[in-house]
Amino acid sequence: MYRSHSCGELRASHINTEVTLAGWVQKSRDKGFMIWVDLRDRYGITQLIFDEERTPKDIMEKAKELGREFVIQVKGQVIERESKNLNMATGHIEILVSDLTILNEALLPPFTVEDATDGGEDIRMKYRYLDIRRNPVKDSLLFRHRVAMEVRNYLSKEGFIEVETPYLIKSTPEGARDFVVPSRMNEGQFYALPQSPQTFKQLLMVGGMDKYFQIVKCFRDEDLRADRQPEFTQIDCEMAFVEQEDILSVFEGLTRFLLKEIKGVEVDTFPRMTYDEAMCRYGNDKPDIRFGMEFGELNAVAQHKDFNVFNQAELVVGIAVPGGNTFTRKEIDKLIDWVKRPQIGAKGMVYVRCNEDGTYKSSVDKFYGQDDLANWANATAAKAGDLILVLSGSTNETRAQLSALRMELAERLELRDPEVFAPLWVVDFPLLEWDEDTQRYHAMHHPFTSPKPEQLNELESNPGNIKANAYDLVLNGNEIGGGSIRIHDRDVQARMFDLLGFTPEEAKAQFGFLMDAFQYGAPPHGGIAFGFDRLVAILGGQETIRDFIAFPKNNSGRDVMIDAPAPIDEAQLQELNLKLDLKL
Amino acid sequence: MYRSHSCGELRASHINTEVTLAGWVQKSRDKGFMIWVDLRDRYGITQLIFDEERTPKDIMEKAKELGREFVIQVKGQVIERESKNLNMATGHIEILVSDLTILNEALLPPFTVEDATDGGEDIRMKYRYLDIRRNPVKDSLLFRHRVAMEVRNYLSKEGFIEVETPYLIKSTPEGARDFVVPSRMNEGQFYALPQSPQTFKQLLMVGGMDKYFQIVKCFRDEDLRADRQPEFTQIDCEMAFVEQEDILSVFEGLTRFLLKEIKGVEVDTFPRMTYDEAMCRYGNDKPDIRFGMEFGELNAVAQHKDFNVFNQAELVVGIAVPGGNTFTRKEIDKLIDWVKRPQIGAKGMVYVRCNEDGTYKSSVDKFYGQDDLANWANATAAKAGDLILVLSGSTNETRAQLSALRMELAERLELRDPEVFAPLWVVDFPLLEWDEDTQRYHAMHHPFTSPKPEQLNELESNPGNIKANAYDLVLNGNEIGGGSIRIHDRDVQARMFDLLGFTPEEAKAQFGFLMDAFQYGAPPHGGIAFGFDRLVAILGGQETIRDFIAFPKNNSGRDVMIDAPAPIDEAQLQELNLKLDLKL
Repeated sequence: MYRSHSCGELRASHINTEVTLAGWVQKSRDKGFMIWVDLRDRYGITQLIFDEERTPKDIMEKAKELGREFVIQVKGQVIERESKNLNMATGHIEILVSDLTILNEALLPPFTVEDATDGGEDIRMKYRYLDIRRNPVKDSLLFRHRVAMEVRNYLSKEGFIEVETPYLIKSTPEGARDFVVPSRMNEGQFYALPQSPQTFKQLLMVGGMDKYFQIVKCFRDEDLRADRQPEFTQIDCEMAFVEQEDILSVFEGLTRFLLKEIKGVEVDTFPRMTYDEAMCRYGNDKPDIRFGMEFGELNAVAQHKDFNVFNQAELVVGIAVPGGNTFTRKEIDKLIDWVKRPQIGAKGMVYVRCNEDGTYKSSVDKFYGQDDLANWANATAAKAGDLILVLSGSTNETRAQLSALRMELAERLELRDPEVFAPLWVVDFPLLEWDEDTQRYHAMHHPFTSPKPEQLNELESNPGNIKANAYDLVLNGNEIGGGSIRIHDRDVQARMFDLLGFTPEEAKAQFGFLMDAFQYGAPPHGGIAFGFDRLVAILGGQETIRDFIAFPKNNSGRDVMIDAPAPIDEAQLQELNLKLDLKL
Repeated sequence: MYRSHSCGELRASHINTEVTLAGWVQKSRDKGFMIWVDLRDRYGITQLIFDEERTPKDIMEKAKELGREFVIQVKGQVIERESKNLNMATGHIEILVSDLTILNEALLPPFTVEDATDGGEDIRMKYRYLDIRRNPVKDSLLFRHRVAMEVRNYLSKEGFIEVETPYLIKSTPEGARDFVVPSRMNEGQFYALPQSPQTFKQLLMVGGMDKYFQIVKCFRDEDLRADRQPEFTQIDCEMAFVEQEDILSVFEGLTRFLLKEIKGVEVDTFPRMTYDEAMCRYGNDKPDIRFGMEFGELNAVAQHKDFNVFNQAELVVGIAVPGGNTFTRKEIDKLIDWVKRPQIGAKGMVYVRCNEDGTYKSSVDKFYGQDDLANWANATAAKAGDLILVLSGSTNETRAQLSALRMELAERLELRDPEVFAPLWVVDFPLLEWDEDTQRYHAMHHPFTSPKPEQLNELESNPGNIKANAYDLVLNGNEIGGGSIRIHDRDVQARMFDLLGFTPEEAKAQFGFLMDAFQYGAPPHGGIAFGFDRLVAILGGQETIRDFIAFPKNNSGRDVMIDAPAPIDEAQLQELNLKLDLKL
């Protein structure tokens, strides 16, 4: 037994107890005649005291050698602390040490192992095992575990069964790029790592499992944007004999439960919005509805004058910045520069000051009178003291630009209250989206998503118009989950593959097993998947997922700690019947 | 809402309720004027009744079309069943159907979807989604879920944190063969899929996580023996500041809890046996101790006569088969043939009949008298009526042969009672084993296992003699878990790598991160891993793991349902900087 207690559990009631503790030296203060050491483990910090009068001389000497992050074991007596620290759970006591063993020495850590560290991202990742000792990272991992347990217990109580689906599956060119795994036993052939267990969970529904879930790793070999990981974790769910309403209800239940259990936040029924409405009101299919600044479309009230920029635009749209009339001219110019940056790409921006006296002052006063501007204020719900910002251009681009501006302003004006949790269902997504590059339709969700049944007859004649029984769960401007009712009819699935440019042979080669399965009694079914890394980060009140992943990879997909990926032996390649074909 | 109730929940108390059910047609009996249909879902079976007098004519017509495994929805009234079926939970009632919707038709299944199916292994795997509808498979998957939940909740309550370790890691030539994953973004480099999260869980201990667990997929690219899978699931655990005794105690607790919760079996303290003792008494490091037939070593009482076979043998060893004296000469000859098969490889076998009158009759009466044979009976604990079977040769081979014979006889004599659960700790494994092929030592457990501290000074001088703080948990003759106290000292780890034939450069290239970590304050730590597939199968009373895995692979590592692995596009290969180098 290395210890009788953890470093987080001793209280005043333990005074006079003989204890054995083990842990890391957080810091030590040596006053010569007295040495205090903060001993740390996962559970907390306990103060140790060595003093000339009461501590054996050899132990006192040894204590003087202790450096930061040394691993030690001490025996001693719990005594009352003279100057209590009420901010510490163990702040009423300290340990008068009678014996000290150095279990392992430690080199000076390359960054301070403190809540606020001096280590940059790169060095922290290289020595991630030291980074994990810091409370912010440690607590994030403990938090992740807690959320996972709550999810599992909730779904299990609701009758869901966690089923492990395989990791070595088959590559399909549809969707994102697969990671592949050469097979040694099947020459020239490859497995793929799953981008999601999609087809397997559907087969489990065909197999009668009725309610499935899995917290599962998924893999995508994409060029990594910030805060994307090549391997990520999903809460993957599927139910049979359900309509969209059943799924929304069950997973609204799960999310409400998590918000309550984890955050103590009670949320009533989640609002719903169609995709079209979300795009129209927020220019975004995952709107943050914790604050206003809803879009006001201005075509009707801005395209009747000689301002050609607006007249030629597909969409003229504005938002009212609350209290924005206090912005100086210089500040507004900076905002205009901000939207004109290539990342946003607006050509320019019109603004209207809503004065306290009810008059308006705009950057386009040459073209628009007070009545016009009053109409704009009306459309954007601007009040006296606000600032109206207006963009124009093609619909999709302009919406995206104004949405980015809206989020940026909300951030600056601190309208995104981290204590508020505002979930939202976005429903009725389009089934398909047109891809200019390949000149064909792509599945907006995936090829297994069911068209709205009442639109099935338009599938070939007017595919772009079709809505899907597909839904996203949005929380504070982040998509935390998305799913759909699936196709369960072989013929509809075949028509869908055809629409997506698969020949019947390709469809059969890649998804023949699923289409076969649909012929043997497939029930209506649907599901949802939550991005678990993101969900945990949001519930944990963080913007970035990295601290909620024990060993994340960097933006080149590298694990800098273990230095992977790495070259492999020539013999390994030969066994796999492969040769390198390097371009460099 | 597709249904108001499941097919498993209606009882007499529901009589007269109007209900909606959905499910699969298990079978239908058409008497012309009356049709009964068994409707099945995950939760059970409910009998539907359609009759000429009370069912609308069109519904009656539709009911006649129903085939096996059709997916249907019915509305109707719960009525009392005339001939009740007390073997069915829903056997008191039936549904008088008023409306019927065919949700999906079904082709005739390629095998019967019944508890006892006519489908062979291959066809069942190809149509696994139909196989999963059968109770034996469905119940196995539900059972697996339940065991996983119990494990997670138990360990979580004990303070263990589930931490997800990465799947894309680095290949190491030590141990079994890795599956590798070419990296597109890091030209010419590869990830490997983990054979276990070993180094990561050790780094979590260095990182202060204190108690870690994970139910996690692991991967080994080995030639598959029966009942081995290229991907398999482990309950992986690690603890800091522990000695062997702490680990045994915690995981004995987990196992005892599972036996109690899942099987209702109470087991007191688990017995322990050293590796040496297990090999000596059972010829096996995972002995089934539910029955006797312990080995009796006979060198002392058999090597003093002129029987050269025994005199030249390193080991002469026997077992007493209880009641085996009833075996006919022909049966004994068959047993001799059995041990001489190449799979076992014995050269021959000597037997001694222990007659009821206290005399002995052996196949070597020419060499041994009654007193000699009485000594053999004494050494093997043979009683009157038993049969002593004796093998001889080199120690390791002879033990393995006799162990195989012991298990075979136990199987035939039904001594392996499936209702009895006999766990056993095997401890003090050797640190190393000598490999004749490579003429060097290999780690018996893995290179991170700690030698017994008191033997550290023999590490270079007498490596073959060193025992490790390594332990296996054995249940009914199966190794269900194994682990060790790890090395946490950089220098000891370096000596260990040296002993295993790593140059310092190789050790640094492959495990430098771990040796670095040991320099920054690594606590003493150790752990264990359970083979989850096997554990679940044993708890479920099955010999084979395949029905406890939703989508298993066959002995060539293929998923015959989705037909993976498969060739990939030339473009995919090019992106990965690879060329096929086929030998065929």
